[in-house]
Amino acid sequence: MNKPERIYLDYAAATPLSPSAFSAMEPYLKGDFGNPSAIHAEGVTARLAVEEARAVIAGSVQVRPEFVTFTSGGTEGNNLALFGVVESLALAGRPYAQMEVITTKIEHPSISVAVVKLQRMGVKVKYVSVDEAGKMKVDNLKELLSEKTVLVSCAYANSEIGTIQPLHAIKKKMLEAEKEFTTEIYLHVDGAQAPLWLTCQFGAVGADLFTLDFAKCHGPKGTGALIRSRRVNICASVYGGGQESGLRPGTENVSGVVGAAVAFSEAQAAWKERTETVSQIRDGAIKLLQSTIPSLLVNGAQGSDRLANNINISIPGLDTEFAAVVLDSKGFAVSTKSACAGAGGGESAVVKEISGDSVRALATLRFSLGPDTTIDQLEKLTQILSQHTTKMKNI
Amino acid sequence: MNKPERIYLDYAAATPLSPSAFSAMEPYLKGDFGNPSAIHAEGVTARLAVEEARAVIAGSVQVRPEFVTFTSGGTEGNNLALFGVVESLALAGRPYAQMEVITTKIEHPSISVAVVKLQRMGVKVKYVSVDEAGKMKVDNLKELLSEKTVLVSCAYANSEIGTIQPLHAIKKKMLEAEKEFTTEIYLHVDGAQAPLWLTCQFGAVGADLFTLDFAKCHGPKGTGALIRSRRVNICASVYGGGQESGLRPGTENVSGVVGAAVAFSEAQAAWKERTETVSQIRDGAIKLLQSTIPSLLVNGAQGSDRLANNINISIPGLDTEFAAVVLDSKGFAVSTKSACAGAGGGESAVVKEISGDSVRALATLRFSLGPDTTIDQLEKLTQILSQHTTKMKNI
Repeated sequence: MNKPERIYLDYAAATPLSPSAFSAMEPYLKGDFGNPSAIHAEGVTARLAVEEARAVIAGSVQVRPEFVTFTSGGTEGNNLALFGVVESLALAGRPYAQMEVITTKIEHPSISVAVVKLQRMGVKVKYVSVDEAGKMKVDNLKELLSEKTVLVSCAYANSEIGTIQPLHAIKKKMLEAEKEFTTEIYLHVDGAQAPLWLTCQFGAVGADLFTLDFAKCHGPKGTGALIRSRRVNICASVYGGGQESGLRPGTENVSGVVGAAVAFSEAQAAWKERTETVSQIRDGAIKLLQSTIPSLLVNGAQGSDRLANNINISIPGLDTEFAAVVLDSKGFAVSTKSACAGAGGGESAVVKEISGDSVRALATLRFSLGPDTTIDQLEKLTQILSQHTTKMKNI
Repeated sequence: MNKPERIYLDYAAATPLSPSAFSAMEPYLKGDFGNPSAIHAEGVTARLAVEEARAVIAGSVQVRPEFVTFTSGGTEGNNLALFGVVESLALAGRPYAQMEVITTKIEHPSISVAVVKLQRMGVKVKYVSVDEAGKMKVDNLKELLSEKTVLVSCAYANSEIGTIQPLHAIKKKMLEAEKEFTTEIYLHVDGAQAPLWLTCQFGAVGADLFTLDFAKCHGPKGTGALIRSRRVNICASVYGGGQESGLRPGTENVSGVVGAAVAFSEAQAAWKERTETVSQIRDGAIKLLQSTIPSLLVNGAQGSDRLANNINISIPGLDTEFAAVVLDSKGFAVSTKSACAGAGGGESAVVKEISGDSVRALATLRFSLGPDTTIDQLEKLTQILSQHTTKMKNI
């Protein structure tokens, strides 16, 4: 028997490395192995590669290169943003108890778990409500902002349900609060899911701190960056050498950042076209799923408020972990929720929060499309899922 | 004019990636890109690769796989060890002020800067003296150990001067103190420079926490591990998903750990033979340097107390940063001190500490040999350095 063709629908969890990124990395894996901090020719070659990669990413997001700090991925970037700001203010003499951080209850674990630690340190953490689509309620944000607020942190687009946050409306409320309290309040945006589908131009995002994870946009695993604005000070969360302007000590992952720069540029060069194409496929598939499986519920926002490649559904009563395994056996790679939240069983904290419905939150499936996903593939998926759902109902 | 052949003598800063490590990595860079936390076939393939790599490293150091935590390198590993122990005890209710950490003043910045942060948190940091070769004075250690001591942290072999610490004597004093105070005192050993030249068998090292940096032993940059004993509890320094048993969240660097396992196994498989060969070349070169350049001083220990591949000298009065540049132009890649301490100018904190001599500490050169370095290459180096020294003296 032939193995079924693999249809990969978990782009939110991992993406294949871009062939041109691999080609760019190869010389630094095979030959040019110098330490970028060394003063000899091998070191200089490595340093130039790192700084060229930084310049490419900086150019793509339109900031000066010194505002790009390389990290080992999105989780580290989010941690560096949160602790970097709070610790920098603490070092400047502000007690933790005089700081407040605002976030939502639907963030990725690298934010939601990190703020619990902030809380333990004495920082007050406030959760702004989200609506049933997962969008931050800006009026509630307005109520929560205070003269103690130092940071608002949220995802650009939610990694499970794909909801794009209204960053401009959020920023507007923050600017009003800054005026009212004559303070500085920084916006941290987790852009891990963004590069393939949304602009990452720093001014357009409107953030003070912007996390990138290059493994999510066809770059190598273990690479990320934190972009920051001129006005925000952060300090390191790891202690050691002076690399990355002292913000991230440790020998730079030279081949990694070289590959990251290529992949990120490719991602951003065509995000608009990609989003136009794939969001149509997404909407076609959502319609098809809804009409084929009547009990199916769509989680998250609609249209342009939703990440182009995200489909997140619940089929209440269905064991969707088992459904994912069945789909896998038929050639489809899908997930139930985010990989970092444990891709397997258990309820989705995100869907629980937006729906208040445990049954719905227990029965989620996420299909995250790639640039080349076709509607035919999703029709086939729908068919198999529908058959499986009917079969399970009849048992 | 032909470019001079490159003779790379900075193996302490960076090593070329092992070709077999690259071959092992290639499938995970080119094809198998799944997220190890995903439940589908692509995820399982990635998970198996990570766990196989962990098992290989665990087997090589002889611990159970669950005691190997992958990190992004040596700096992160050292930080995880120090903060991991202290924060774990703090979570269990022990105030920072009731903890003491003992280290030396010649550690790598990822320890020396990290303990300053511990101090700011309220932990008392005590510095045990080292002798003129850089060896920890165990009698002084005995005096410093107290019922509040929770951790002793030092390098297996110093990254600048190559001095191997008397770990068994250190451990003996710690065991005596544990008995006297009926406490647990953990030994953290930074093994970044060890794998090519010393046994990393965990029992032989005698540590509770053991940091590895695979980029220093022909593995890929951005990969490391922290090995720990059964009796020590640590908690994460980064907050997020449940990866690495919750100790190091973020998507695993799959190709990186696969390459790391191959390189580390190769390194450990032949460390003894390598050390026998290279230490003879080292000693031959040291003799030659001393007889050729009369003003030259050797920094660090002799014979088997010195890392096989380390030569560290001072030529008081010489601008050794300029000498490194001159040597570079003649084809030799050398450094003045450790890359993380800023490979360029400035005094060596390590040599300053052991010698108390600023002139000597300002004039260091480190030649760190590779497995294939020849005595002919070092003769040529000695000749050029001697000529340069004479020339500079005459100016």
